[in-house]
Amino acid sequence: MKIIQGGVTAPSGYTASAVLAGIKPGRTRPDLALIVSDRQAAAAACNTRNLVKGAPNQVTEEHLRSGRARAVICNAGNANTCTGPEGLAHARSMAALAGAALGFPATEVIVASTGVIGQKLDIAVVERAIPALVAGLSASGGAQAREAILTTDTRAKEMAVEFQLGGKVCRMGGIAKGSGMIHPNMATMLSFITTDCAIEPALLREALGSAVEASFNCLSVDGDTSTNDMVAVMANGAAGNALIAARGQDYLSFCSALEEICSYLAREVARDGEGASRLLECRLSGARTVQEARILARSVISSSLVKAAFFGADANWGRILCALGYAGVAFDPLKVSVAFSSCAGRIAVCEAGGQLAFDEAKAKEILERQEIGIEISMGEGEAEATAWGCDLTYDYVKINGDYRS
Amino acid sequence: MKIIQGGVTAPSGYTASAVLAGIKPGRTRPDLALIVSDRQAAAAACNTRNLVKGAPNQVTEEHLRSGRARAVICNAGNANTCTGPEGLAHARSMAALAGAALGFPATEVIVASTGVIGQKLDIAVVERAIPALVAGLSASGGAQAREAILTTDTRAKEMAVEFQLGGKVCRMGGIAKGSGMIHPNMATMLSFITTDCAIEPALLREALGSAVEASFNCLSVDGDTSTNDMVAVMANGAAGNALIAARGQDYLSFCSALEEICSYLAREVARDGEGASRLLECRLSGARTVQEARILARSVISSSLVKAAFFGADANWGRILCALGYAGVAFDPLKVSVAFSSCAGRIAVCEAGGQLAFDEAKAKEILERQEIGIEISMGEGEAEATAWGCDLTYDYVKINGDYRS
Repeated sequence: MKIIQGGVTAPSGYTASAVLAGIKPGRTRPDLALIVSDRQAAAAACNTRNLVKGAPNQVTEEHLRSGRARAVICNAGNANTCTGPEGLAHARSMAALAGAALGFPATEVIVASTGVIGQKLDIAVVERAIPALVAGLSASGGAQAREAILTTDTRAKEMAVEFQLGGKVCRMGGIAKGSGMIHPNMATMLSFITTDCAIEPALLREALGSAVEASFNCLSVDGDTSTNDMVAVMANGAAGNALIAARGQDYLSFCSALEEICSYLAREVARDGEGASRLLECRLSGARTVQEARILARSVISSSLVKAAFFGADANWGRILCALGYAGVAFDPLKVSVAFSSCAGRIAVCEAGGQLAFDEAKAKEILERQEIGIEISMGEGEAEATAWGCDLTYDYVKINGDYRS
Repeated sequence: MKIIQGGVTAPSGYTASAVLAGIKPGRTRPDLALIVSDRQAAAAACNTRNLVKGAPNQVTEEHLRSGRARAVICNAGNANTCTGPEGLAHARSMAALAGAALGFPATEVIVASTGVIGQKLDIAVVERAIPALVAGLSASGGAQAREAILTTDTRAKEMAVEFQLGGKVCRMGGIAKGSGMIHPNMATMLSFITTDCAIEPALLREALGSAVEASFNCLSVDGDTSTNDMVAVMANGAAGNALIAARGQDYLSFCSALEEICSYLAREVARDGEGASRLLECRLSGARTVQEARILARSVISSSLVKAAFFGADANWGRILCALGYAGVAFDPLKVSVAFSSCAGRIAVCEAGGQLAFDEAKAKEILERQEIGIEISMGEGEAEATAWGCDLTYDYVKINGDYRS
């Protein structure tokens, strides 16, 4: 597998485009994205498990019961959530308008929205933008689509890889949006992934579920599970590989590529967490099971106190022990050790659950960098996991103190 | 029941005192508190459920197996947590030193500590302070004790009530400490409550557990369950009431007084949340069970996004629906309504899960006050609960960016 340029239009048979429809007043970057496969693709999505679920998420769940899709339409600036029956009708209209312009049924369109909750979506604005959106579709359009799905994000997140299946070159590419309200629960913020592999929808769904568990679900920016989380993948078979219909070597290669992309995008979402000045990567080992490792690692990077300490480059390892302790997983605190690392070095701060004598100046130097590793060893078993988060800063408070305006 | 002046020395038969022992360099307010009953008292405590548990909490659990105690000793500035066998020995020494100076066994002393995790407690500093601490005991000493248990708190929290049992005047008083690392789980930050009632230890424990569920456990400042949470109560019988030995009217009156004090103190802890500029009180009704009502209300006041919105006086009710949605309780979003209130008025913002047309200027005026009510009606049943929290501010980040220094 190798990393290649591009995102959702890197695989064969996909085009994309984006326009500034004007969904939220004052926005200057595009706010409506379209990603299209030139043939019917196997498709799957993980949706938010928040009970208060965006109208587009509900519509997408209905549409993907077939396991097939041909396009994604996504707007930023309005979440179309808590908008009642009218909101559902609007989400259906978005799919129908895109489908009609592209020449296929609404049920083959994946719909997603992100933005303010509880405000009515102006569907006329979307409708007016559709012709230009469709006219703009191109094989280099992934670069526009990745911008159009962003809200408070400071940068786009995109990745593509190339790998071989039975001698055929296959590609997979993905984009993601996410900065605040990030604490995915069996799903995540918005991410769209395309591949030209041929794979059965049931296996695609399984591969996506497992990749999401190891990536987006190990991510937290602020502990708030969004109402509009969605990761959707389309696999159109344009690469010409033999259809993946069983859990053989090809399926494993496919899963590796998918996990690579999901992990990269999850990490980038954490790095771009609202107001974040540092990326936190918690590498936890020595847990009894992978599931417990993930719960523990995620508890650490979700703690407001841990996050604020890293903002201050403060080697406050006691807060890490505290966050492990309330994670709901049984362990012996006297077996835990903790070290911090960054490009400036590595320093062990806690061993056997207690303080190690360490050089505070050196710790500060390590913690003042932009990517911080939190290395935790539980001493309970062999399982490990990585979770991603970011520090808690003044800017997070500022951004969220008046987001609607 | 009526509210009276004072705290832990308001009931008969209690003295207290505090000194500045010098446990954490640079501190200028007292850091070591002692509360003493003039006779053996029934006693109970709720301790943190964090797996990483302070040494004093472990020692207190041992001591309270008897259901009896005569004193509380508590220091601020060092949590004596993650300090290994030496830390445990230090916690036992604190109890033994106090007991020896007062003339009763160490096992009759409740020990508590609060402050930085993972640093060795200098027990010699505590030992040197004991004589002055004991010499200073007085019936007005509650006013010193309430100061000595504080850390980042900006104000002391104290309350006392008077009520009658079988013609006898009984009193109950409590103090609390708490500002950050506040997300109690079956226990809480530090709170000490005294009463001159006579009550069986088993009933005292039961009454405390139920009062804590309805008060401290409905409180969150930052979602971090502390390692040193403790609520301890002593009941010494000095009021001369008939021993409460069954769940009759006297027991109910006792429970009312206890819940009154715990709720008041929980609310005051929220008001003094680290960096807080507003107290949030979420009054949730129409849930199916009290337990579900508490889970839902607490999810709302724990959300970083909700908290940041209130900092900005932003009527962002969508985030409240979002926080209800991921609380883990089943409900129909289309039955939810939300209103905000303060001394400046009341405004309904969401009905049937959707936006109400409301006056943004009026909402801003209401939300710019210091005490905000978040009124939620679930439309599912008859149960209700109240939870307390505070806004998320720049100052929270500042305080916690470099707490150890």
